[in-house]
Amino acid sequence: MAITGDQRLLKRINRMALVRLVRSQPGLSRAELSVLTGLTKSTVSLLVQELIDESWLREDLVLVTGAIGRRPTPLRLDGRRLVMIGVELGVGNLCVVSMSLDGEVVASVQQSVSSPEHVDEVLETLAELIALQVQEQRAAGRELLGIGVGVPGAVMELTGVLAVAPNLGWRDVPLREALQAALARKGVTDLALFVQNDGDVAALGEVEFASTPVADPLLYIGLGIGVGSGLVVGGRLLLGGRGFAGEIGHIQQQADGPLCSCGRHGCAEAFFGLQAMANRLGCSIEMLETRAHAGEESARALLAEAGRHLGVLMHNLWTTLDPAVIVLGGPACRLGDAFLAPARACFGKLAHAAHLEIPPVVEARFGDLAVPAGAAALVLHKLLLPI
Amino acid sequence: MAITGDQRLLKRINRMALVRLVRSQPGLSRAELSVLTGLTKSTVSLLVQELIDESWLREDLVLVTGAIGRRPTPLRLDGRRLVMIGVELGVGNLCVVSMSLDGEVVASVQQSVSSPEHVDEVLETLAELIALQVQEQRAAGRELLGIGVGVPGAVMELTGVLAVAPNLGWRDVPLREALQAALARKGVTDLALFVQNDGDVAALGEVEFASTPVADPLLYIGLGIGVGSGLVVGGRLLLGGRGFAGEIGHIQQQADGPLCSCGRHGCAEAFFGLQAMANRLGCSIEMLETRAHAGEESARALLAEAGRHLGVLMHNLWTTLDPAVIVLGGPACRLGDAFLAPARACFGKLAHAAHLEIPPVVEARFGDLAVPAGAAALVLHKLLLPI
Repeated sequence: MAITGDQRLLKRINRMALVRLVRSQPGLSRAELSVLTGLTKSTVSLLVQELIDESWLREDLVLVTGAIGRRPTPLRLDGRRLVMIGVELGVGNLCVVSMSLDGEVVASVQQSVSSPEHVDEVLETLAELIALQVQEQRAAGRELLGIGVGVPGAVMELTGVLAVAPNLGWRDVPLREALQAALARKGVTDLALFVQNDGDVAALGEVEFASTPVADPLLYIGLGIGVGSGLVVGGRLLLGGRGFAGEIGHIQQQADGPLCSCGRHGCAEAFFGLQAMANRLGCSIEMLETRAHAGEESARALLAEAGRHLGVLMHNLWTTLDPAVIVLGGPACRLGDAFLAPARACFGKLAHAAHLEIPPVVEARFGDLAVPAGAAALVLHKLLLPI
Repeated sequence: MAITGDQRLLKRINRMALVRLVRSQPGLSRAELSVLTGLTKSTVSLLVQELIDESWLREDLVLVTGAIGRRPTPLRLDGRRLVMIGVELGVGNLCVVSMSLDGEVVASVQQSVSSPEHVDEVLETLAELIALQVQEQRAAGRELLGIGVGVPGAVMELTGVLAVAPNLGWRDVPLREALQAALARKGVTDLALFVQNDGDVAALGEVEFASTPVADPLLYIGLGIGVGSGLVVGGRLLLGGRGFAGEIGHIQQQADGPLCSCGRHGCAEAFFGLQAMANRLGCSIEMLETRAHAGEESARALLAEAGRHLGVLMHNLWTTLDPAVIVLGGPACRLGDAFLAPARACFGKLAHAAHLEIPPVVEARFGDLAVPAGAAALVLHKLLLPI
């Protein structure tokens, strides 16, 4: 009997449902999957065998107990053979990682970029880094599911065009198309390529690699030279009408505040973006970090004020979006409690004044790799997305 | 052959899909519905006949043209027999409307409440108003689909509990249960009852009664004694983890700003909530309106400043959520351009500084009835929601 398009679609949905279930409840057996999905045992067995053959799932050891009869075989995600490439296209910094299905970073490479404003040059360097990692992973016997890219700007999902990235100085760059062409010149032509905002992918990184279901909605706040966010609600990204949602670095916090790189005054980013803070101290970002850790008074005072602005922003986003958890990530987290403690205190004080309790505020699970790991999660998200 | 539960569910989904299609594209024929849904012509004919019998749909006149052969019969929503009851439980004000399927207000009644803090008394009065309207509609031969209620507070969707409504002074009120009991005492026992935040229902009112597809995401901002919002994205409400999303009246706009009713300082509501503005002028809300329309200087200056705060709020929500349209509603819109023109100007100026264009900002289609009409839309939304 010929398989129709509908049947192929249904099969794909069922396969991905099985992967999602095993991911969120490791150790499920075929019989349990049959109960949970409503699929017959023979359909589940057939699909599970396919998923094992393709390295999505593996069988775990059967625990031998005193009970009589055959024990069901526990299933788990197979972290050994399938990997996704995740890319951070940052301001002056490129990072490429390979992530296993179960969220392990199996390879990682960083490279700084001296002229981030030169689009073609940056993409050529990036394509080189990616192509090398693709070769290495394949040489190690791993299979690639695709490439995800996180960028500090507003991306139009359908076209892959980067509309505007103020801190890169890029505008209207057909990013997916241009990177695809650069990759083709390096001989990489057979991998799916997904591009999205860095805050959005970092939010996905928290969700897609979690071994237990995570709080929903999940709000990720990225703290670096730029300040951005991603919201996962009902398992999906909130992207907005043009895909520009989450540009929270340009929320105006004070009408007569400092000038921001975007041309507005008093933006959140102008108060606690890394470059803005360093500029205010008259030093480099590296020096800011050093001075903060040395407990220098002028750095301490500046970070305390910046932290209070972050606290107000967290409060206002919580009031607007009611996230069940807030995740903080990005390099500014390295400033530590000098920056984050005043932020938490300010948020808590505001909520307390209204007799409300704040949600958990946690740090990103992949730390400095939140964006590249999240970009790898974007690939998984696209593949596993329920239709 | 017996019909299984699955088949009943599938039938319900298909029926509602047909209603949604005819609503968004009035004039579709059975043959066109068959093409659009993939259902067979005979299934479509059967379901359409049922929907006509139940007054969801009606057949329109066939246009006689010169062409040969039988013309397809255009189908439209039937606005004549099915109605939803929509309720605004406001601060000191109750409003009950009956809305037809196609968004016509067929009946409307208002009543002021002298002691809004007395929960039982308010619900008893409200149940009386609703019961009367139920009787009237039934006497007129109309059939009721259910009752929706919009309240100025945070509602937990699953339980129907109103967690907190600062301007009513209510906290932890089992609203759905208590109103259901009060309605039962008036003899109304057979109607579905849905309760939701007033900003959320008003947003649904813009979407569910639209005869052409509306911009998505749609952000509704309700301007009254309280300030709240509702966001419809992908046809659904963004409710947040606890159902508290959209409490934008308590976004902090200025750390050392005026004290708000919630206990915090510098909330949006403390700048441009109706009561806060009236208090600042030392007059009643009615007087504020009169003085604004008379063009009195102190009122004009206050409203211009309040409007600028609204403009910043709109800008910041736009930056966070990227709505395709912003809808303004609520009684403060009656203050007119003295309030709204500075708001639009401030929003536009901020966007312009970053070389961005603002989305359309429009006024609510149901004007002063945005919340009760929206509460009726909540009933329709629940009935037509794709599973």
